Amino acid sequence: MKKLKGLKCVSCGHVHAIEMIYECEHCRGSLDIIYDYESIFTENVSDHISEGGIWRHRSLLPIAANTEAVSLGEGNTPLLRSTALEVEFDQAEILIKNEAVNPTLSFKDRPLAVALTVAKQFGVEGVVTASTGNTGVAAAAYAARAGLPCRIYVPKGTPKEKLIMMEMYGAKIELIEGTFSDAYLVSGQEAKKNGWFNLTSTFLNPYAIEGDKTLAYEIYEQYGGVPDWIIIPIGAGPLLVSCYKGFRELQLAGKVAKLPRMVGVQAANCAPTVQAFEKKLKEVEPWGYSNQTVASGIADPLTTYPQDGTRTLTTIYQSEGCGIAVSDESIMHYQKWLAQKEGIFAEPSSATAIAAIEVMKEKGFLQNGDSIVTVVTGHGLKDLKSIR
Amino acid sequence: MKKLKGLKCVSCGHVHAIEMIYECEHCRGSLDIIYDYESIFTENVSDHISEGGIWRHRSLLPIAANTEAVSLGEGNTPLLRSTALEVEFDQAEILIKNEAVNPTLSFKDRPLAVALTVAKQFGVEGVVTASTGNTGVAAAAYAARAGLPCRIYVPKGTPKEKLIMMEMYGAKIELIEGTFSDAYLVSGQEAKKNGWFNLTSTFLNPYAIEGDKTLAYEIYEQYGGVPDWIIIPIGAGPLLVSCYKGFRELQLAGKVAKLPRMVGVQAANCAPTVQAFEKKLKEVEPWGYSNQTVASGIADPLTTYPQDGTRTLTTIYQSEGCGIAVSDESIMHYQKWLAQKEGIFAEPSSATAIAAIEVMKEKGFLQNGDSIVTVVTGHGLKDLKSIR
Repeated sequence: MKKLKGLKCVSCGHVHAIEMIYECEHCRGSLDIIYDYESIFTENVSDHISEGGIWRHRSLLPIAANTEAVSLGEGNTPLLRSTALEVEFDQAEILIKNEAVNPTLSFKDRPLAVALTVAKQFGVEGVVTASTGNTGVAAAAYAARAGLPCRIYVPKGTPKEKLIMMEMYGAKIELIEGTFSDAYLVSGQEAKKNGWFNLTSTFLNPYAIEGDKTLAYEIYEQYGGVPDWIIIPIGAGPLLVSCYKGFRELQLAGKVAKLPRMVGVQAANCAPTVQAFEKKLKEVEPWGYSNQTVASGIADPLTTYPQDGTRTLTTIYQSEGCGIAVSDESIMHYQKWLAQKEGIFAEPSSATAIAAIEVMKEKGFLQNGDSIVTVVTGHGLKDLKSIR
Repeated sequence: MKKLKGLKCVSCGHVHAIEMIYECEHCRGSLDIIYDYESIFTENVSDHISEGGIWRHRSLLPIAANTEAVSLGEGNTPLLRSTALEVEFDQAEILIKNEAVNPTLSFKDRPLAVALTVAKQFGVEGVVTASTGNTGVAAAAYAARAGLPCRIYVPKGTPKEKLIMMEMYGAKIELIEGTFSDAYLVSGQEAKKNGWFNLTSTFLNPYAIEGDKTLAYEIYEQYGGVPDWIIIPIGAGPLLVSCYKGFRELQLAGKVAKLPRMVGVQAANCAPTVQAFEKKLKEVEPWGYSNQTVASGIADPLTTYPQDGTRTLTTIYQSEGCGIAVSDESIMHYQKWLAQKEGIFAEPSSATAIAAIEVMKEKGFLQNGDSIVTVVTGHGLKDLKSIR
């Protein structure tokens, strides 16, 4: 594809050719796709308008114009004004981007639809992923749609509902003792052994995370501009980083003048990136404590890849955003509050993005007139253990 | 509202004024909203294009132009081509309309968003509904969004996941001994006593079911015309009847020439309407046998309101469609098949719409060149009992 210039290492800057690789060959840093934006922005974008959801933005994805999308109708999720939140926190404008309204009920459908389409482009024979749940569910569904076998490595304690979904879609599941970081290692070995495409989220798969950029394009279109703040729950944080990349692309295209301030939210019980932000560090360190939290979807201690947290932290600093940690008690409170006040049933990991507003207010980050978009990343029905 | 001409009884034809009533004052028949189509079709419809989902079609809903919608971003669900189904059944064109990709994971978000918006128009103090699950979940969520209290009457045996959702949204749930028909009676009494709006699906609430018409408008737009067949799982059958009404409106507007043939699907273990179709009867009789089936969402014996089944049967005849009964075994088979072949996890009641294609083929209803849209009405994650 002419529009893709290469895979650039975010650590050392080395540019690699477009291939099925996951890290810099020199320094093992994570990779970022670089585009020939000039050629893209002169293309007639309306060519893709008839494709729905994320595929309207195909020109800014690592997909050729004529490649058939592996799609289940992902994206184009609701952006809802929340009067209840505005009153609760005395803010002028709070909107909820509800990513639970996706085919497998989380934002992961964006990167996985892109990843499986790329998998078909590369002609692989199967796909592998590590997951805390949502990535695995999406990987299993999109692999089924693509007609490819799928193996998923999940930590023990992954919510039962997510396991049932993966199984229904026909994926092979391996339960791993330990945390997500342990599952991450095993899945990497398996992918290497079989030559299968590794879909693991974090920043491992540089193609998948490009799908996350479509969140930015949709917020821009639906909001009609750029909100002051965008709040996103983060494990490693690819959604936050890619969403910001999406807005930077809109800036390059001359569509927006300012950029949003990015807020990364973690559960206080597993908050490696937020801890680094609070200590004003430049680099994230692995989380050395227990990572027990109701927010299982973002309970990533970053044990063997703290540099992924650093990539997210760097974006937070660049955007003049902040890192926010929230307690399990507050997560459970706002999960229920949001369902009862607005009819939106978020999973605990997503309720962090509501709980964060309270902390931002307390810490003085917010002006009353600020506009806020907070992202509900997944549906509460996928994780009922926390409610019982 | 000038565009609404009245509520017409489908049995005796008497026209009532637009009020909060649920049946004909003369013969207790169900009611159908009649519109002044001439004034609607001369309106500038593009005024509503900026509203998303079902609200783009506001001009054909019983909602004033300036009424604020009680919306969670419902509608605009994916219409997906299914090569796997086309191969399986040797058909030229099969598409799946996936209504599980709605805020509360079923098509019920369409009628309930409309119903709660109408509830606000009427200025009621609360809402009531009987439900086998999906209506209750949607009613609870939209009532929360509208800021109205909600009481839900469900038969014992309603899937646990659906009860958890209703509870999360803050609704008050009453478990009723017996079938949906029993819950129907109690909810009616409660609504009358309190003056609360009765959202019960079946054809009771003439406003709610207008929301179902938006399914037709979307199929027309996404498919780019009218498919030969539309397959819909039915309890009483409001979705089937309203979808057909939607296509008739498109015909009146001069947008389409032909109309689709409507297929109503029931589980063989509870199939009052299909039985009447197979016996070539003009009227449906209540189901006199046990109604035990995995398809709990459509297990309605129509005990005290067989005329609702007759309304659906009449539409099936008018459209030159058919009624199809499918076995529990086939439902479970195609539920798994659909998840593994296409990455779509339908609830058992929805998998009937896949299983029906096999029976239509066997019975000689289908030509190989026919185009088919089959409707997946709700998400499998809302009903896990059947899988365990």
